[in-house]
Amino acid sequence: MTRGQFITFEGGEGTGKSTQAARLVAALKARGIDVVHTREPGGSPGAEDIRNIALNGDAGRWSPLTETMLMFAARSDHLEKTIRPALAAGRWIVCDRFADSSRAYQGAGGGTPADFIEALDAAIVGHDQPDLTLIFDLPVEVGLERALARGAGETRFESKGLEFHRRLRDGFLSVSAQHPERCRLIDATGEPDVVTERVWRAVEPILP
Amino acid sequence: MTRGQFITFEGGEGTGKSTQAARLVAALKARGIDVVHTREPGGSPGAEDIRNIALNGDAGRWSPLTETMLMFAARSDHLEKTIRPALAAGRWIVCDRFADSSRAYQGAGGGTPADFIEALDAAIVGHDQPDLTLIFDLPVEVGLERALARGAGETRFESKGLEFHRRLRDGFLSVSAQHPERCRLIDATGEPDVVTERVWRAVEPILP
Ligand SMILES: Nc1ncnc2c1ncn2[C@@H]1O[C@H](COP(=O)(O)OP(=O)(O)OP(=O)(O)O)[C@@H](O)[C@H]1O
Ligand SMILES: Nc1ncnc2c1ncn2[C@@H]1O[C@H](COP(=O)(O)OP(=O)(O)OP(=O)(O)O)[C@@H](O)[C@H]1O
Ligand SMILES: [Mg+2]
Ligand SMILES: [Mg+2]
Repeated sequence: MTRGQFITFEGGEGTGKSTQAARLVAALKARGIDVVHTREPGGSPGAEDIRNIALNGDAGRWSPLTETMLMFAARSDHLEKTIRPALAAGRWIVCDRFADSSRAYQGAGGGTPADFIEALDAAIVGHDQPDLTLIFDLPVEVGLERALARGAGETRFESKGLEFHRRLRDGFLSVSAQHPERCRLIDATGEPDVVTERVWRAVEPILP
Repeated sequence: MTRGQFITFEGGEGTGKSTQAARLVAALKARGIDVVHTREPGGSPGAEDIRNIALNGDAGRWSPLTETMLMFAARSDHLEKTIRPALAAGRWIVCDRFADSSRAYQGAGGGTPADFIEALDAAIVGHDQPDLTLIFDLPVEVGLERALARGAGETRFESKGLEFHRRLRDGFLSVSAQHPERCRLIDATGEPDVVTERVWRAVEPILP
């Protein structure tokens, strides 16, 4: 049994990750690949329970450090219950956000020390690093505009401030630079179909 | 403002921690000391929410590693919202279980690597180590007998097996040996009044 491929979608809010992840899952299925479409935080019953307490309540309910612990607790359960069993059974994983979101949000954005996040990643994710990480990159103002157009995400996006989203983008760019073996930067500007084409070109090298 | 003293009660199930913690809190208050009586997991609104998901459900709902993350997530919130502000205001803390329970339960009992638990302790607890830790020690069979007499805890105690509780006791004894500067081993056999006297002798050196 060949181990499945593990693909993660990363990047700031409103960059188009969820839109493109759904399209990639459909395209892979059309090629006969057995894919599990999952997301973080969440992706297993226990991790979804942790997601509920992690994301609800006031913006200041959890410190960045506590939030980091909750995200990796959820990630641990998600890996054990969903990701590792699927990959071992030869299924592919398309995951909407993963550990790089902790590096960007809790680390670059929230100030949790990078070496602590790396220690957690080593203990929780270990050797099960993604085979391919697509990092969606967009000028912060364009993402803000898309989020405004979508409506629902508006307050949460604006409440953290432009400065936070600039640190976030820089965080993702630095993850991409530090892990060139698995990361591909996706230019997320332009029409959805154009972005889909860029995603497909990044995925083609790992197709069977 | 003199910083308050931080006292933790540790040890296996049914060793009498909660009984004696309540008595110590009353005795300290009678001496005019302003004490916060708290417990883990829990002790702040966010940490109590984490406690609810950590302790509910099947015994095998969380792996020891995920459980370790949840316990330290709760501990992080408890420290930030309850323990550190109280100590800084000169109040004392009496806490029913703390980080040594993670060393014993998730570490010695559950198999989470000791060096990972120490890395979490360094990042989350840091310099705010307890000033005094009372480790309640009891032959495993005596604790089992007390738990049986209490009724409610019976199934949970028995479900983990004698072997688990022997590893737990050894874990607490080794914490005590590794941190002699703050740990006092309390012989938890005998009548409650006799144990109260032993607790008081351990606390006397730090009284104002
Ligand atoms: N290429 C695109 N051009 C313009 N709008 C887009 C594009 N891709 C997605 N959108 C729209 O932008 C909004 C955000 O897209 P989507 O939800 O896919 O982003 P996301 O990265 O998953 O966001 P979040 O981080 O909040 O989950 C949606 O309303 C979506 O329809
Ligand atoms: N010295 C003692 N001798 C006999 N029984 C005791 C003694 N101390 C406490 N008990 C009884 O033993 C049971 C367990 O005591 P307690 O709840 O204080 O233990 P605990 O260490 O807090 O347990 P847990 O780890 O389950 O919270 C209770 O029914 C209590 O009344
Ligand atoms: Mg999305
Ligand atoms: Mg108790």
